[in-house]
Amino acid sequence: MSARAPGGGAEGEPFFRSRWVQAPAHVRQLDSASGLPAGFLAAGATAGIKPSGRPDVGLLVCDGPSPASAARFTTSAAPAAPVLLSRERCRLQALRAVLVNSGCANAATGRRGVEDAAKTQGAAALAAGVDPAEVLVASTGAIAQELPVEQILKGILLARAQLRREGDRELQAAIQTTDSFEKRANLEVQLPSGTVRLNAQCKGAGMISPRFATMLCFVQTDALLSPQTADLLLGVCVRRSFDRATVDGQLSTNDTAVLMSSGSSGVAVAPESEDELRLGEALDALLRQLAIMMVADGEGAGRVARVVVHGGQQDRVETAARAVANSPLVKAALHGGDPNWGRIIQAVGGALAGSDQLPVDIAIEGIQVCSAGAAIPFEQRALDAAVNAPEVEYEVALPGEGAETEVFFSDLSKEYVSVNSEYTT
Amino acid sequence: MSARAPGGGAEGEPFFRSRWVQAPAHVRQLDSASGLPAGFLAAGATAGIKPSGRPDVGLLVCDGPSPASAARFTTSAAPAAPVLLSRERCRLQALRAVLVNSGCANAATGRRGVEDAAKTQGAAALAAGVDPAEVLVASTGAIAQELPVEQILKGILLARAQLRREGDRELQAAIQTTDSFEKRANLEVQLPSGTVRLNAQCKGAGMISPRFATMLCFVQTDALLSPQTADLLLGVCVRRSFDRATVDGQLSTNDTAVLMSSGSSGVAVAPESEDELRLGEALDALLRQLAIMMVADGEGAGRVARVVVHGGQQDRVETAARAVANSPLVKAALHGGDPNWGRIIQAVGGALAGSDQLPVDIAIEGIQVCSAGAAIPFEQRALDAAVNAPEVEYEVALPGEGAETEVFFSDLSKEYVSVNSEYTT
Repeated sequence: MSARAPGGGAEGEPFFRSRWVQAPAHVRQLDSASGLPAGFLAAGATAGIKPSGRPDVGLLVCDGPSPASAARFTTSAAPAAPVLLSRERCRLQALRAVLVNSGCANAATGRRGVEDAAKTQGAAALAAGVDPAEVLVASTGAIAQELPVEQILKGILLARAQLRREGDRELQAAIQTTDSFEKRANLEVQLPSGTVRLNAQCKGAGMISPRFATMLCFVQTDALLSPQTADLLLGVCVRRSFDRATVDGQLSTNDTAVLMSSGSSGVAVAPESEDELRLGEALDALLRQLAIMMVADGEGAGRVARVVVHGGQQDRVETAARAVANSPLVKAALHGGDPNWGRIIQAVGGALAGSDQLPVDIAIEGIQVCSAGAAIPFEQRALDAAVNAPEVEYEVALPGEGAETEVFFSDLSKEYVSVNSEYTT
Repeated sequence: MSARAPGGGAEGEPFFRSRWVQAPAHVRQLDSASGLPAGFLAAGATAGIKPSGRPDVGLLVCDGPSPASAARFTTSAAPAAPVLLSRERCRLQALRAVLVNSGCANAATGRRGVEDAAKTQGAAALAAGVDPAEVLVASTGAIAQELPVEQILKGILLARAQLRREGDRELQAAIQTTDSFEKRANLEVQLPSGTVRLNAQCKGAGMISPRFATMLCFVQTDALLSPQTADLLLGVCVRRSFDRATVDGQLSTNDTAVLMSSGSSGVAVAPESEDELRLGEALDALLRQLAIMMVADGEGAGRVARVVVHGGQQDRVETAARAVANSPLVKAALHGGDPNWGRIIQAVGGALAGSDQLPVDIAIEGIQVCSAGAAIPFEQRALDAAVNAPEVEYEVALPGEGAETEVFFSDLSKEYVSVNSEYTT
């Protein structure tokens, strides 16, 4: 594949670069070295967990006057130890710190894994001068390996000494595994009540990315939020972004997304206010762009696609969209620039197996190819060109109206197989 | 991959060659040139549908005294025209002929496709001297292309002139698309009431195989069966064979399996008799071996695996087994001979997302690697050797008892991506 996945940006490229995301007019991209919002400090350290010798421990601390937060975790029935610990032992609405490591997922490690995570949580609390329940822990890396507690404690000490307003780049570096580019944003958001900052550091390549790297996302703002507002905004925006992205349909054991607000700007965002609406629009655009960047950075990805499905029943629309996005045949055709839309109807038919025959309509980049389940004439040359673009959009119409969904997905390439078959944990 | 998939046999190799199938003692393999059971004639012809110039139309006729039959079809919500026609317009319990073509699936072709299929059904009925409702039609090939009716009529004429007892090899050739070896059996079954024959011709590489080739299977016996017995036997055996095989989790639009009995042997198989039990055992072994052969012939397959899942709830056991068998990460690890069992717990956890944390046990080739969701010590060298064998078995235990299932699956290789991305319909 010579095509560069959209979203895989060079330094200096605009953050909002997918046609599927509109940066709101009240959102301005800042210099990537502009640092964290007021009330936040971060650092990254190299503790020696990764054999590559790259940074692997990150620390994020909120020292603002009015911390509030919200978090979302994987729904896996095999959640990793840090997810279990954070979910059960943290004050998720009032977090003051995040300890994160890469190089080890601390998953499938049993009670021992939770105890190990708790030790590092305690150490991070001491280092940050906060309560252990105010420290969220997150890990990413290989499953079924013991957490190297000693190394992480060393990393905490190193990171503590480096904590600074401009540490978001180091934090980003410490969470990346096989990510091929930064997924980091420094934004300024104009609200009716004043200007606030909105930053994020994110890693991953879909629900699960190469070598069990995992989706992690840390978002900070210096707005003054109530925990309820933080939870509402994060919940709504996660559903429209990370929940709609897939590389390989494989739900991770470690997915974690956290929104933290420091209140340092003094700009209060009241419930159901215009401020809340505007901040929500900014967060929505931010998380959607990050989700698309993860898909674009999926193992071996050369193209990003969006499938939009509408019809009369939400559950069927959802099932069909996921089936198309996760079909190895659709993904291989996307990779090859092959307008083989028979695979889309096959995927929908398989996903809704047991139903009566469905009169499905299919369009690719606006070119209708199938009406009521049957092929119709279309301009082959236009279709060939459309499916060879870096971003491809499929639209599927099931019977009925009122329900609609979208899923972003990557293609399936030989590189995906290489990454996932030649690597041994 | 240098490993040859098990089941990919050279001429003269035993038909029952997987360790997961026991050939019953009362079943004997006959010479592959021994022809069809009494009461059956078959032929294949080259009608020019396939650009390769290989055989593409097959005809199977039952001229026995007491025909009975049963059929099973894809449950896709986008069934192909021949499936719609056969399901709705055939006397499936008393079929006397099968018309099959490769090179065109006649799927996503709308009402026109059904009318085209009906034309060829009528022509085949005329050629075989039977009623149109006694002719099952089946197709395999690319989706969303019109059935070339004229060519098929030509093929019917050619095939009719070639109909003979030994035509099963030609029938097999006419249904193959990208299959790399024959999936054909000539068996003799010793029943208490006498000896009967049992033949099958089968094609495909999983639920869906390369280039939309499809799973088709035609089984013949000269036993005297009631339609109810044929239906019972086929139903039970399909559930234990084709229903348990996956290459890529992609349900086809065209899957068709047919059991036909001619009664020509005069050996009557009464309901709930020892004869029925023995014939069922033979059919079970036959279809299981064919299913494993399809998986072994999956696109780019180098290994075949079986995942056995047990626990307390059948639906959860089934969901978990399919999730493991269809996980691109598990399949890529299988391909690379990588004992990366963390991917198995991840797949199970993702499949049962939303549940409380599950205490999962995992064993690979009898070597336990995970107990109650946590890694345990094991002999790494033994595990490495086990996962590099041509057949690999995974066992997953969920909480509870009483439910168990198995799924056969192939690995994910670069060849799969090549086959499915470099090809354009």
